[in-house]
Amino acid sequence: METGARNLITDVAGLRVGQAQDDHVKTGVSVLLGDAPFTAGVHVMGGAPGTRETDLLAPDKTVEQVDALVLSGGSAFGLDAASGVADGLRAQGRGFAVGGQVVPIVPGAILFDLVNGGDKDWAENPYKALGRAALAAAGEEFALGTAGAGTGATTAQLKGGLGSASVVLPSGHVVGALVAVNALGSAIVGDGPEFWAAPWETGEEFGGCGVAQAWPDPHLPVTKLSAHANTTIGIVATDATLTQAQCTRMATAAHDGYARALVPSHTPMDGDLIFAAATGAKPLTNPVAETLMLGHAAAICMARAIARGVHAASEAPGDPFPTWASRFG
Amino acid sequence: METGARNLITDVAGLRVGQAQDDHVKTGVSVLLGDAPFTAGVHVMGGAPGTRETDLLAPDKTVEQVDALVLSGGSAFGLDAASGVADGLRAQGRGFAVGGQVVPIVPGAILFDLVNGGDKDWAENPYKALGRAALAAAGEEFALGTAGAGTGATTAQLKGGLGSASVVLPSGHVVGALVAVNALGSAIVGDGPEFWAAPWETGEEFGGCGVAQAWPDPHLPVTKLSAHANTTIGIVATDATLTQAQCTRMATAAHDGYARALVPSHTPMDGDLIFAAATGAKPLTNPVAETLMLGHAAAICMARAIARGVHAASEAPGDPFPTWASRFG
Repeated sequence: METGARNLITDVAGLRVGQAQDDHVKTGVSVLLGDAPFTAGVHVMGGAPGTRETDLLAPDKTVEQVDALVLSGGSAFGLDAASGVADGLRAQGRGFAVGGQVVPIVPGAILFDLVNGGDKDWAENPYKALGRAALAAAGEEFALGTAGAGTGATTAQLKGGLGSASVVLPSGHVVGALVAVNALGSAIVGDGPEFWAAPWETGEEFGGCGVAQAWPDPHLPVTKLSAHANTTIGIVATDATLTQAQCTRMATAAHDGYARALVPSHTPMDGDLIFAAATGAKPLTNPVAETLMLGHAAAICMARAIARGVHAASEAPGDPFPTWASRFG
Repeated sequence: METGARNLITDVAGLRVGQAQDDHVKTGVSVLLGDAPFTAGVHVMGGAPGTRETDLLAPDKTVEQVDALVLSGGSAFGLDAASGVADGLRAQGRGFAVGGQVVPIVPGAILFDLVNGGDKDWAENPYKALGRAALAAAGEEFALGTAGAGTGATTAQLKGGLGSASVVLPSGHVVGALVAVNALGSAIVGDGPEFWAAPWETGEEFGGCGVAQAWPDPHLPVTKLSAHANTTIGIVATDATLTQAQCTRMATAAHDGYARALVPSHTPMDGDLIFAAATGAKPLTNPVAETLMLGHAAAICMARAIARGVHAASEAPGDPFPTWASRFG
């Protein structure tokens, strides 16, 4: 199976990603922006989520389409990133039309990167400006690793990061994933360098190390020392025409990518969640078979994106963990 | 890490499993029974569930403890199995006391095994009697493979089955899993014989074939031909003292075991769900660290139980798929 041209979530036509980061604070924001509003759903599986505008994504709620989705560092302070994105969209005249006003619909989620070696002694919450800057930077190309919402991310043994991947399915539908990997668990098997996601690697998109040959005791996982400094947040997207209910199901299936790429995942101390986005450009011709394949592809792209994010992380002053490249590259 | 003495969910003291099956119909029932009522939660992730009494398991609902949990074949007809169990418990004077009456609390879930080579031309729904017979058979030892709710189960390439596994954690808590594997997806990698769950195998509990060395294109999974004849239903259990909310979180984490042992899993055509049960015999001393480990152990035990169930399946007349043993044994 082939990846899209960029092997990024922006291989889904009509979607762009913008990012902004503050290397001094060691944090940042990633925004998924649609050329037009897109249908979205969400599924939360972690025990410690931080979110905004996720209730409206339930299939029985009135608004079905959103203007952007935001992933941010900063724990609950990072929720302001979505406010910055909403202000920026308002300035462009974009949003849900209500009584002559337009209200941008911008769900968002955060990860905890407040204890990662960065200078957190800011006087004014920086996330609103970071959100607006990320929106302004939106394009089809964007950086992986230490970038955007992955700037300050960590995992059990290695620096975390921002990952993405895509695939073109036999039906012609494109599926992509975007993720900021800040897991309590580990993306590598034992002491590495092999990734848990290795069975799903396409080409050598995260180093081509292959599947591990030595396996640790599965019941004694490696975890981050600080049990509260976690959360992996992600988005899967497609050009298929999906309802909000079908997006919800795609988001649910995509969590299998977390389970396969991170050990442990979905812990009480992770706020793990996944948004799903559908631009609606390409109708389903066989809904049963195609929604099955879309969900599966979303899970696989998510596992690949997680490994790519950790693999691409770059060193910075004050890092609490080595990068994959500095340890194994 | 050591398994419990039996490597079964009944290594959790105070829990018993009873099973009954009809080999002519190719279906059956498995019951998890507590010596005393136990706390329970549930998390549903598949797109096509069939359930009874799952709403009361939500942490905000009044009843926190149940008398038994039932896994059954038979699609929606199989929900009658829980009725048979409830009648049997009533005859024993067991249940939730209300105004001088006792009402047994028996949540249950079903899998679809109506197209598996069995004779489905019954005049009277057989599941109530099967449920009552399973209850009467409850003990600490029980059969794996083609037994109980796994009697008529199938997977993408092989006969499915009833699996179980356990582990004793460093905290002293015991965790176990019970599962009826009837997945749309496959438990083996490519053409096998290696299981997806191989990295998690303890000893040679499902054949000791090790981890696959050749990996299929991840985006082209093998799936069952009949897209509606699916659903994997399971239970994880512990002797820890957990609230209903903590049981819910343990059930959620345990779904990672499905993701790791079955590809694809959690599809729109699977009713995948997991119950969690806690007898409460052993309090938590470090709730943050221990709930994390309980959830992780539940996921690992579930992955192991899935592989054990498929590995242990035995041949029977009219089977639509070979067993693992007949193909690789």
